[in-house]
Amino acid sequence: MASMKSQVPLLDTVTRYILKRKGKQMRPMFVFLSAGLHGPISESTYTAASMIELLHTATLVHDDVVDDSNQRRGFFSINALWKNKIAVLVGDYLLSKGLLVALEKDEFRLLKIVSDAVREMSEGELLQIEKARKLDIEEGVYFEIIRKKTASLIASCCACGAASTTDDRDIQTAMWQFGEMVGTAFQIRDDLFDYQKHNKTGKPGGADIREQKMTLPLIYLLNLSGRAEKRHIISTVKNHHNDQKRVAELIAKVEAIGGLHYANEKMLEYRSRALKILSDFPDNDFRKSLYQLVMFTTEREK
Amino acid sequence: MASMKSQVPLLDTVTRYILKRKGKQMRPMFVFLSAGLHGPISESTYTAASMIELLHTATLVHDDVVDDSNQRRGFFSINALWKNKIAVLVGDYLLSKGLLVALEKDEFRLLKIVSDAVREMSEGELLQIEKARKLDIEEGVYFEIIRKKTASLIASCCACGAASTTDDRDIQTAMWQFGEMVGTAFQIRDDLFDYQKHNKTGKPGGADIREQKMTLPLIYLLNLSGRAEKRHIISTVKNHHNDQKRVAELIAKVEAIGGLHYANEKMLEYRSRALKILSDFPDNDFRKSLYQLVMFTTEREK
Repeated sequence: MASMKSQVPLLDTVTRYILKRKGKQMRPMFVFLSAGLHGPISESTYTAASMIELLHTATLVHDDVVDDSNQRRGFFSINALWKNKIAVLVGDYLLSKGLLVALEKDEFRLLKIVSDAVREMSEGELLQIEKARKLDIEEGVYFEIIRKKTASLIASCCACGAASTTDDRDIQTAMWQFGEMVGTAFQIRDDLFDYQKHNKTGKPGGADIREQKMTLPLIYLLNLSGRAEKRHIISTVKNHHNDQKRVAELIAKVEAIGGLHYANEKMLEYRSRALKILSDFPDNDFRKSLYQLVMFTTEREK
Repeated sequence: MASMKSQVPLLDTVTRYILKRKGKQMRPMFVFLSAGLHGPISESTYTAASMIELLHTATLVHDDVVDDSNQRRGFFSINALWKNKIAVLVGDYLLSKGLLVALEKDEFRLLKIVSDAVREMSEGELLQIEKARKLDIEEGVYFEIIRKKTASLIASCCACGAASTTDDRDIQTAMWQFGEMVGTAFQIRDDLFDYQKHNKTGKPGGADIREQKMTLPLIYLLNLSGRAEKRHIISTVKNHHNDQKRVAELIAKVEAIGGLHYANEKMLEYRSRALKILSDFPDNDFRKSLYQLVMFTTEREK
């Protein structure tokens, strides 16, 4: 990526390191397929994909500070290697670089779509932290958090992709909604991984509980628990989240009451709503590929 | 500021806290005066001022993480109170909010001017960290760091102010240069504070040395020192920066060799260049006020 070269050698080292970690490149795929669905891929499509990938990487780098996690996908996090100082600055650099990519090409429509997503993402993270204090979180709040935190960026991929090949605002809006549904399903799937004993994400199971993150399977259990039981669960998450035995017990309870099944049903519900939107567009190879991409992101094993 | 209200209560608490800390409001003043110098203050001027103040606040919040300092201007830093997690997210939120202010008003010209400054600021910070490893920093690198870190945002205040009242690109460029000179003078002045025994900034003297930041007075001393002396100085900064006696000795040496005088001369040089640019514009009340603001920012005692 030529757009990544800077005049600061340290920054180049960090950037090379980030690029090596790669990832699934799911977001650029949503951009390109959403673009192709509505017209021939254009230079704007490439701009949208670069911009969003830079912003996504910026948030990953900042997450390294935020979560204070020492590992991400098996590598040491930027944070552990170069400490918070640099992670914050590199994230800011990538954020401004992402916006500049669009500004330099006068892509104001794309910029507007994406900036809203960026604001929602930080709002979502902050909402999560705020709610994490009380722990007794409602299902509606959980969905609001994941809509903002995760779904809004995927929504912006689909809306930007469409905006790069059609000026039809209705289509752009529909593609945003499609992405929001897919992103929500994706995040529920991701939250489910944490309850799978031998999951393949490289994270140990129960990591969310240890970080005091309340996700759908656990919220389901809480809602069905009596007052004393509820207090015990919250105490586990709040004060005993490093007690392996209590965390394992909690995971077993979630499973026994059907929390995983419930979350999976919800995931399928959002996926159906996404596919329903997709089915309203003309059938072509891009639509088929988007369908497969949705299935992949919601059935993946890691 | 209505533009600051969010839907996340925690964010509102943090925002109120930030607004309480206020500051000198130097940047909005540069925007308004630079605007008035070239035409009647417009709605664009207000947009520019809000955008830049939001971005500036974002960088201050991120600095709290970056510097890991527990105090800023006598208050506890956001970082100490709510920890890194929130500081990063609030900074990101303010950053995107600042950009959205301009996007919502279709102020693309302002956005371009400011985005370049944002990128330069993170580049400057990273360059400083990189160079801080070796410590034996050249004067030219010091000036590059402060140009990017501090001067570029003040430059963008002046260029955006002008851009809000005139379409003349030559004037916008000249105002950028004016701001760059002022910003550089401002930062040299700021770095000088650190060598004043009873300074009023609320920071203890020698703070930069303790943070291993090489500023102009110390660089001047290094350049005039022999090899053994140089090694001793660098060892103080690198390994003994918490030894009050050695830091005090170093400050005395800087003073004795004329490092403070030299830095002050350089500061005056940049100020003159700024005032020279200003003198090419028609004389009016705004020009007089800008002149006074430049004098204030370079003669202030805190």
